[in-house]
Amino acid sequence: MSAGFPAEVEIYDTTLRDGSQQEGISLSVDDKLKVARQLDALGVHYIEGGWPGANPKDAAFFARARDELALHTAQLVAFGSTRRASTTAESDPNLAALTNAGVGLACIVAKAWDVHVIHALRTSLPEAVAMVADSVRWLVDHGIRVMLDAEHFFDGWRHDRSFALDVLAAAADAGAERLVLCDTNGGTLPDDVGPIVDDVRAAVATPLGVHFHNDSGCAVANSLLAVAHGVIQVQGCMNGYGERTGNANLVPVIAGLSLKRSVRTIPPENLELLTTVSRHIAELTNQPLPPQSPYVGASAFTHKAGLHVSAIARRRDAYEHIDPTLVGNTTRFVVSEMAGRQSIQLKATQLGIDLGEDDIAEVLRRLKDLEHRGYHFEAADGSLELLLRRASGWTLDDVAVESYRTISDCMTDGPRATEATVKLTVNDRRVIATAEGNGPVNALDEALRAALDPAFPLLKTVKLTDFKVRVLDSDQGTDATVRVLIDFQDPEDTWTTTGVSTNVIDASFEALLDGLIVAIARARDRGEEW
Amino acid sequence: MSAGFPAEVEIYDTTLRDGSQQEGISLSVDDKLKVARQLDALGVHYIEGGWPGANPKDAAFFARARDELALHTAQLVAFGSTRRASTTAESDPNLAALTNAGVGLACIVAKAWDVHVIHALRTSLPEAVAMVADSVRWLVDHGIRVMLDAEHFFDGWRHDRSFALDVLAAAADAGAERLVLCDTNGGTLPDDVGPIVDDVRAAVATPLGVHFHNDSGCAVANSLLAVAHGVIQVQGCMNGYGERTGNANLVPVIAGLSLKRSVRTIPPENLELLTTVSRHIAELTNQPLPPQSPYVGASAFTHKAGLHVSAIARRRDAYEHIDPTLVGNTTRFVVSEMAGRQSIQLKATQLGIDLGEDDIAEVLRRLKDLEHRGYHFEAADGSLELLLRRASGWTLDDVAVESYRTISDCMTDGPRATEATVKLTVNDRRVIATAEGNGPVNALDEALRAALDPAFPLLKTVKLTDFKVRVLDSDQGTDATVRVLIDFQDPEDTWTTTGVSTNVIDASFEALLDGLIVAIARARDRGEEW
Repeated sequence: MSAGFPAEVEIYDTTLRDGSQQEGISLSVDDKLKVARQLDALGVHYIEGGWPGANPKDAAFFARARDELALHTAQLVAFGSTRRASTTAESDPNLAALTNAGVGLACIVAKAWDVHVIHALRTSLPEAVAMVADSVRWLVDHGIRVMLDAEHFFDGWRHDRSFALDVLAAAADAGAERLVLCDTNGGTLPDDVGPIVDDVRAAVATPLGVHFHNDSGCAVANSLLAVAHGVIQVQGCMNGYGERTGNANLVPVIAGLSLKRSVRTIPPENLELLTTVSRHIAELTNQPLPPQSPYVGASAFTHKAGLHVSAIARRRDAYEHIDPTLVGNTTRFVVSEMAGRQSIQLKATQLGIDLGEDDIAEVLRRLKDLEHRGYHFEAADGSLELLLRRASGWTLDDVAVESYRTISDCMTDGPRATEATVKLTVNDRRVIATAEGNGPVNALDEALRAALDPAFPLLKTVKLTDFKVRVLDSDQGTDATVRVLIDFQDPEDTWTTTGVSTNVIDASFEALLDGLIVAIARARDRGEEW
Repeated sequence: MSAGFPAEVEIYDTTLRDGSQQEGISLSVDDKLKVARQLDALGVHYIEGGWPGANPKDAAFFARARDELALHTAQLVAFGSTRRASTTAESDPNLAALTNAGVGLACIVAKAWDVHVIHALRTSLPEAVAMVADSVRWLVDHGIRVMLDAEHFFDGWRHDRSFALDVLAAAADAGAERLVLCDTNGGTLPDDVGPIVDDVRAAVATPLGVHFHNDSGCAVANSLLAVAHGVIQVQGCMNGYGERTGNANLVPVIAGLSLKRSVRTIPPENLELLTTVSRHIAELTNQPLPPQSPYVGASAFTHKAGLHVSAIARRRDAYEHIDPTLVGNTTRFVVSEMAGRQSIQLKATQLGIDLGEDDIAEVLRRLKDLEHRGYHFEAADGSLELLLRRASGWTLDDVAVESYRTISDCMTDGPRATEATVKLTVNDRRVIATAEGNGPVNALDEALRAALDPAFPLLKTVKLTDFKVRVLDSDQGTDATVRVLIDFQDPEDTWTTTGVSTNVIDASFEALLDGLIVAIARARDRGEEW
């Protein structure tokens, strides 16, 4: 039976150690300091900074953290392992590194699966237990508080329960403050979690933690179930980073416990930071946050199906499992070819565009055609806005494009030069502008601005904040269709435009020009003078 | 208490209906037919094809499926809803559409949460129950077997258990074969699943299914827990597609039940198709499969940490929760700046490249420097191979690049023309080649081949199979650094190369040229004549 949820659960983040093992993540020491500051601002209890005894970069992190990292809430933890077999704790350089890391708290890993002791460590089970006892005691004697990561605990419990529990007991007796049951290979299914946690709680009195990996797709749920059975610490990573399929994603663990089970995790007033911190850390790890991410993804509270939109507007709590503002996210309605007339009308009304029945039918027809060719207006509100404006009869008469050209030249042992030329008619005057750039798209951007700035000086305040390229039919090799998305920002607004072509330059030009036209159209709506 | 796992669980796939609601997915009728064939090859029990009464594209799908879709294992299901309030089943066009879909099996959705009945349907609870009874009975009377999706069941049970159970009882009494408990908003946490399923099983005798969404990050685990409590059908989507955060991902549901709980799901001999079917459907939905996907992702059995590599090689079952070949996946070892000498040595040995201690140190130094600049060799085995070959003193003396140039020209009302010129020295002869293309990279590809084919005719057998562009620091706008990855294939091999630059053309040229050099180097290793 469930022991019931505890009043508070400690959030232990290992993004900087276990999370960094994810294929594609490579954090510099600067990046690690930035991630740590984000985690501290969120209010996690512990930040595992790395393994100073095994990795020079991690040692450098701890050295700089001492001077540069002023944590407000979180405690920094150094990760390490027990002493090696058939040696002493005194002589172990890895344990010494933990006392030199400048932190008062260490988490050391010990093997709790007999198979690993025999085949990986190649030592005896009694020696494996002694390694735990000696190492914990030596650290405690040297003034370091200790948590134990019982590696492969769930596999160990299933294979040799007695040895697995001996490892925990040895650590507890030697003074470990937390015993963390690790599902290191991630193979545990949720129906096993409650019975195993209950069995361990009956055997040891020390507070327990869990550390799940997501190889079975159950890491978040397994963590929540363990807490339902009385575990008081959850280890995991922001956004579920980690080796193979990742560690338990702390975002839904925090939100689920705090918002749905009244368990205190991070300070309640910080819950609304979850979305920004999750996305900020995604930037730092250079891993785009999947839009489908629970609670914090861009799609997490996005409604697409036409049939729902009007009902949702009436009674939001019947269609969303939580109020998205509680975690700093927002409800979004998107328009696509599946949208009905109602969604288009709603969007037009929001934008102050007057559309008749025939106009809407024309918009739906155009949307369907363009999406068939690879456009995707869900992500490109600026391009959708132009589509709706144009359907209402609006045009920007002042600007007409005659042609554009890019030339990119590279000499192996000489200079590289890229330039773009645009020819436009602006307010009935022909304008030709040429600019150089780091690449052809950058050069086009510069040339367009050189041509348009004199007539539209407000464009100086328009910034490009993001540029994405997606190859659509990538199996066509270099002959593939590409979709470009560009994010724009001015002092009033943000918007995104899109372009599609087999030529990345044509696709980029389309998105660039449309983005600037949106800026002009919106400024005119606001009655701003040029 | 758990009722224990059933011997078999029905896999009900709704990728074609609920999965298509995912932001970014837009399937044509052709795509839907292709997805259905993949699902049938995998051996799922049911394929929900769409909602013929609500969506013309879905109606077209069922019409074509009748003629073109010869299913071997799966049964096609049409989705619909109960009759509207205060009408009759006879007069309901949505129910009529189900009888006209050409399938013998329908799944109809009914609201099981009193809040929705009152605020969305705006009718009474008794009328809501009558809508269910009438609709199921009418379909059964018209020869259609019926399953009931009890929408918002978990929220309904928590708010008004009696009404929620009345909806199930009405469907069962009217002849529904399956009662499916839907967590439509995805808010249910795993500790609620067992008690609610147990309560329902005590109240109704009809076999139960579940349909979870992933808003709390628990859809897979909740599905597995429901099966542990006696549910015999799981509804979900391949790769977890679906609105907002997605539906329950059927991949880990199938693999978990079949491989870890001896529950029959798809035919056992088809389990090894999971990886290819998952990836094929990802291509059809045009959603790149996240490498971290449990069981089937490219990283699911990838080992990066240097300390593990040698141990894993000794005793694989101690480090992987299942044998990856059981689901058609494979173990991978990747090399990155975190790699130790051992990983580099292993890779070199695999490639038959002889590297001394100093060479390896030089490779590690180069890797670190290049990865700092944005290169990523984990995904680019071809580029890594060239790095290792060059460290061993190898060079391709026959080819030297002097320069390349691309020109892309677009007239708004006229032709678009893109051409590339490359100047090379091949076997001491200067070669200049110019080619046109759909875009600048395609033109460069054509020009390079025109220049190299006469000297290296085997390059005719080298195909480009994939081309990816990733913007690295996308907040730099059009001035950002891009990373290009190109996949190559010849009759013997596949390989991937990479290039990094602020100029997409320079990055592409680097990857293109390196890809062709790998082909030449490998052909020479095989002793093939040119």
